[in-house]
Amino acid sequence: MKKLINGVDDVVADSLTGFEAAHPNLVRVSHDPYYIVRADAPVDGKVGIVSGGGSGHEPMHGGFVGMGMLDAACPGEVFTSPTPDQMMEATSAIDGGAGVLHIVKNYTGDVMNFEMAAEMAEGTDVRAVVIDDDVAVQDSLYTAGRRGVGATVLAEKICGGAAEAGKSLDEVTELCERVNANGRSMGMALTSCTVPSAGEPTFELGDDEMEIGIGIHGEPGRERKKVASAAEVTAMLTEPILDDLDVGDGEQVLAFVNSMGGTPLIELYIVYAELAKILGDRGVNIARNLIGPYITSLEMQGCSITLLKLDEEMTNYWDAPVHTAGLRWGV
Amino acid sequence: MKKLINGVDDVVADSLTGFEAAHPNLVRVSHDPYYIVRADAPVDGKVGIVSGGGSGHEPMHGGFVGMGMLDAACPGEVFTSPTPDQMMEATSAIDGGAGVLHIVKNYTGDVMNFEMAAEMAEGTDVRAVVIDDDVAVQDSLYTAGRRGVGATVLAEKICGGAAEAGKSLDEVTELCERVNANGRSMGMALTSCTVPSAGEPTFELGDDEMEIGIGIHGEPGRERKKVASAAEVTAMLTEPILDDLDVGDGEQVLAFVNSMGGTPLIELYIVYAELAKILGDRGVNIARNLIGPYITSLEMQGCSITLLKLDEEMTNYWDAPVHTAGLRWGV
Repeated sequence: MKKLINGVDDVVADSLTGFEAAHPNLVRVSHDPYYIVRADAPVDGKVGIVSGGGSGHEPMHGGFVGMGMLDAACPGEVFTSPTPDQMMEATSAIDGGAGVLHIVKNYTGDVMNFEMAAEMAEGTDVRAVVIDDDVAVQDSLYTAGRRGVGATVLAEKICGGAAEAGKSLDEVTELCERVNANGRSMGMALTSCTVPSAGEPTFELGDDEMEIGIGIHGEPGRERKKVASAAEVTAMLTEPILDDLDVGDGEQVLAFVNSMGGTPLIELYIVYAELAKILGDRGVNIARNLIGPYITSLEMQGCSITLLKLDEEMTNYWDAPVHTAGLRWGV
Repeated sequence: MKKLINGVDDVVADSLTGFEAAHPNLVRVSHDPYYIVRADAPVDGKVGIVSGGGSGHEPMHGGFVGMGMLDAACPGEVFTSPTPDQMMEATSAIDGGAGVLHIVKNYTGDVMNFEMAAEMAEGTDVRAVVIDDDVAVQDSLYTAGRRGVGATVLAEKICGGAAEAGKSLDEVTELCERVNANGRSMGMALTSCTVPSAGEPTFELGDDEMEIGIGIHGEPGRERKKVASAAEVTAMLTEPILDDLDVGDGEQVLAFVNSMGGTPLIELYIVYAELAKILGDRGVNIARNLIGPYITSLEMQGCSITLLKLDEEMTNYWDAPVHTAGLRWGV
C-alpha cells in the first residue's frame, strides 16, 4: 500500500487538521468528537443541514460545509459510520432555532446512528431524509434497499440553497425528498481502492476486468465484465438509470459525471461526451452539469453517473450562490 | 491498460467533444486545428492570454479558459506539444487589439512552437513568458533548464486577473515574469501513469518505492527512495523549494498542494497539514492556498507543492473573480 499518510490510524485526524488549517474562513473543526461546522454557525433563524458518513469520499461531506450548502459534516473513520455523539453534537452546534435536517446516505450504520442522534438532540426539531439513488443493486453489503451515492451531493447543494433562502424545515425536507425521488445513479470501477487500516485492496479485479454497479466502498455491483470502451461503459451505467427514472423527450436533467477518485478529468469528459449523446438521442436536455471528483472512493479508478430530473425550484437552488471548499460559485 | 476511453487515438478528440458539450457558456472549441477560446473572444481592448501544451494535465489548460484567466488554450496530443498553427490561430482568434501574452511551460517543444507561432501571428503584438519553476532538476528529458509546472496555474490566474482589469501588455508580461521569479515547485510520484498510445506505464516503480522530483510527464526526478510518511515526503519537497526561494519570517506565500491525478483529497490535506507546520515553524504566513488536482499527469498517484511568494498586486489578482471550468470564484 502506497499512500501519502503518516500512519493508518492518523489518516482522518491528519486530514482534518489540514482541512482546518486550509479553510479557517469557511469552517471550524471540532476534534473531540470530530465534526466540521461552517465558520458562522449557528445561523440564527436558518434551517440547519447536517450530513456525514465514513471518510474516504472527499470532498463529500466536509468539503461541502459552508454558505449555501451544509452547516455541519460528521466524518467517521474511513468507510465507517460516524457515531451518534458526533451527529448529536454537530446538530446542537448548528441549531439556529429553525430546526435541522439530516441528509443521510442509505447505509445501515449511518441510518441507525443518525436516528439515535436525532433522539439525543433534545430541544432541536430534527428531520431526516435518507438518500437511496443507486440503481445498481436492490440490497447491498451494508444496505437494506438501494445505496445512497451521487444524489447526496446534489441534495446537499439544492437543500443548502433553499435553507439559505429562508425556507422552513418542512419545505427543505420536502425538497430533499423530491431530489432523492428524482435522482438516480450508477457507478463502475476499473481498480479497487485500499482502505488504509486494511492495507490490501478491497477486492481483486483482473488486468482486463471492470466492475459495473460498484458501491462507493467497493461493495460488489451487478457484474464483472471485460473492460469495454467509454461509449459502452457509459451506456451500461446510463441505461439502467433511464429505465428507472421517468424522464423523457423535452425534459431537463442535471448530469453529474463523478470520478471515484483515481480517474482523471480527461477521461470524465470522454464519458460526459457519451452521456450527452445518449441523452440527446432521447431528447433529454442537460440543463446543468457537474463533472469531477465529488463523491469518491479513496483512489479507486472508475466513475459514476447521476441524473437528476430538474424542476424550476431545484434548478434555482442549484444555481444559488455556494461557498465551500469543494463547490463554489456566485460568491 | 485500463482507461475510460474509446480508442488510444481518440482520447484528446473525445475529451474535447465532452468539454465543449459541457461548457458552452464558457468556451468555444475549434476542432481543426484544436484550440479552446473563451465564449466571448476576442474581448475588445483587453490583453489576450494564450497557453497550451500536451494534454493529460487537465484541468490545465483548457479548464482555465474563461473570464479572469485564459483567453485560449491549445491542447496537443497526450504529453505532446501542440503545433505552431494551433497557437497561431488561437492567438489570432482572441486578439482584442491590446496584444497577446503566451504563457509557456519550459519544455523544448512548447517553447520552440510558441516562438514560431508568435512569428506567424502577423499583426498581433505577442510576448511570451516561459515558466520554469520546478526546482527538482536543472535540465531534464524534455527541457533545457528547469521544467515549468505548478506556477503555471498561478501565473494564468494572476495574469488573467490583471488582463481583465485592463492592464497593458507590458504590465501583464512583467507580472507574469514576477510570478515565475517568485514561484517554486517540486513533485513526487507513488505510481507511474500510462500514456494511452504507449499502453504501458511510463516508468516502473517498486511496490515500496517513490520518485522524488518527478516531472509531470513522468520524467525522472532527483532520486528514487523507499516510500516514506507524508511528513517526510512533504519535507523532501518543501526544503528544496525553501532553499531556492527567498522567503522568510513574516512574509506571505500562496501554498498550492496539487494532485498528480490519482491521489485523492484526503491525502492532499494531510500533505497540506505538514506543509503548514513547516512554514509555520519558519514564520512564513500562508495567505492563500489551492488544494486539489489542477496540473495533473493522467492518473499518476503523487503530489506536487508550489510556493509563490506574494506581493499585494499578485494577491489582489489572485482574489479577482474568475469563471472557468476548473477555477471559479467571485462570480
